Amino acid sequence: MATPSSNQVTAKAHTNIALVKYWGKKDEDLIIPQTGSLSLTLDHFYTETTVSFSKGLKTDTIKIDNQLVNQKNWQKIHSFLNIVRKKAHINLPAEVSSFNHVPYAAGLASSASAFAALAAASSRAAGLSLNKKQLSQLARRGSGSACRSIFGGFVEWIAGQDDESSYAMPLKSDLINDIRIVALTIKTSPKKFSSRKAMRLSVQTSPYYKSWIQLVKHDLAAVKITLLNNDFSTLGHISELNAMRMHALTMSSDPSILYFNEATLRIINSVKQLREKGIECYYTIDAGPNVKIICKEKNVSIISKYFEKIFDKNRVIVAKPGSGVTYE
Amino acid sequence: MATPSSNQVTAKAHTNIALVKYWGKKDEDLIIPQTGSLSLTLDHFYTETTVSFSKGLKTDTIKIDNQLVNQKNWQKIHSFLNIVRKKAHINLPAEVSSFNHVPYAAGLASSASAFAALAAASSRAAGLSLNKKQLSQLARRGSGSACRSIFGGFVEWIAGQDDESSYAMPLKSDLINDIRIVALTIKTSPKKFSSRKAMRLSVQTSPYYKSWIQLVKHDLAAVKITLLNNDFSTLGHISELNAMRMHALTMSSDPSILYFNEATLRIINSVKQLREKGIECYYTIDAGPNVKIICKEKNVSIISKYFEKIFDKNRVIVAKPGSGVTYE
Repeated sequence: MATPSSNQVTAKAHTNIALVKYWGKKDEDLIIPQTGSLSLTLDHFYTETTVSFSKGLKTDTIKIDNQLVNQKNWQKIHSFLNIVRKKAHINLPAEVSSFNHVPYAAGLASSASAFAALAAASSRAAGLSLNKKQLSQLARRGSGSACRSIFGGFVEWIAGQDDESSYAMPLKSDLINDIRIVALTIKTSPKKFSSRKAMRLSVQTSPYYKSWIQLVKHDLAAVKITLLNNDFSTLGHISELNAMRMHALTMSSDPSILYFNEATLRIINSVKQLREKGIECYYTIDAGPNVKIICKEKNVSIISKYFEKIFDKNRVIVAKPGSGVTYE
Repeated sequence: MATPSSNQVTAKAHTNIALVKYWGKKDEDLIIPQTGSLSLTLDHFYTETTVSFSKGLKTDTIKIDNQLVNQKNWQKIHSFLNIVRKKAHINLPAEVSSFNHVPYAAGLASSASAFAALAAASSRAAGLSLNKKQLSQLARRGSGSACRSIFGGFVEWIAGQDDESSYAMPLKSDLINDIRIVALTIKTSPKKFSSRKAMRLSVQTSPYYKSWIQLVKHDLAAVKITLLNNDFSTLGHISELNAMRMHALTMSSDPSILYFNEATLRIINSVKQLREKGIECYYTIDAGPNVKIICKEKNVSIISKYFEKIFDKNRVIVAKPGSGVTYE
């Protein structure tokens, strides 16, 4: 039995954007993905979570942004804490307080930073001393993409086939010095279909899903080569295509799901126009209408100014590569 | 050698909308498709074309809507007339005058009615007496979907593998009495990527194209069963999914092509809302932003009024099933 830390533990984790998307599970319970994926952890958009286990509580008390969570979220976090308690052989209720510095459920992957921070804080508070690979495996149980947020910079999630073999690891590339993300947060309201449901629909009903599994293998190998060669252009091109091919899956599922809205179409067209003018940039879109633009440091200013003219200034956020999970 | 008719010949053909889409060629020259397709010929949107062959001309004189066509269209129609001349063993220039009662190149299949009317008028003017199957084979050489506009009502284009085996044929169903199309012509400007180019890109670069070939076989068989059983709901559901799966192909090609605009998204959402309210209707979209809504006669009024509030009244056109090619 591990000895729970007498004090509370606080951990901070950043969100990540996938350049090669994670879309579909092989195992819904353990969250083993159908394919690998590859992401960039960002310095903006993070979650800070404080956890303590104590005898004084009747049950888990969970607050997000100072508010007690609803029944559905409580159940999800409670189930995650049960995994931690089982690993640590303890049986104490937890007090969790989390602050999300990300727009919730609008394609900015708040669950990635949330479960990465929760995995780090809760495991240490429970007396466990996990290495980063183990933290990654644990975070994965809460939300698949959270396993990537344990690490900073470029990260690969190795699909694996069971709890032990499915985890993330960092990838080295000098592109990290130059790559920037201009995030356009055009909508922050919750989406109709959660990623989890939409993924399941794609796996079960899209006639293109089998081809997706093959193309991701190809994209992963190709992106890893661009990271070795510092080939930003090919990295951007593959990322953009990969995102559209993921959205083609949701569009081809039954029912058909289209996450784009008017602003999404406008940004896609703007990125193409900027590129035609010689400003190199690429777009990527997760399960929501928000668009993230991949560019180099030298073009950040011109791109962000361009979109500040179209949208509110506070909806255009420039992010750099961010670090992995940290304790405070 | 056939004897050219001394008089000019006028033929009229209607456009058709595909319920199971034609998307991709096996043979670019003969226009042999990768898959079969299935359409409904409409009573609105037609082309009237008058052709005569005469010694008095130096070369083919071709007018559309009273205007001489540009070099590119001239070449396309001239090549088509060469096929007719070769079949008829004549070597005379033609005078062609065509009136298109369809918005040009905006997903309303103007080329389908155009080449169906041209095939009928030019072949008879050249002295040929082709039956409808032969007319269908001939029209196909001008524009693939034109082969379907030779016939009225529900029509299947049998893919085949050569000039002889690739043609359309009519399908009987009592659904013909009840089915209606509410066409929303939200944009009439020419599109960036012609269907021909976009199809080629899909075949060559979409990782999903092979699966498309398989799913169309399935959709064709399923739609034919709905026609036999007068099963409007399943017909609508399959048509809607088939259209979105075609657009998923263009979206997943390199470069990615998205034909939808803001109005397209709005109409898709409106159709879903109407359906939730119990007004049964389905959308289909060709290679452009325009949407056609498939419904039953009893709901035409409520659906067209709904969209007349959103768009200009003259952009909402109610079409019934139309007849095949006719001579005047």
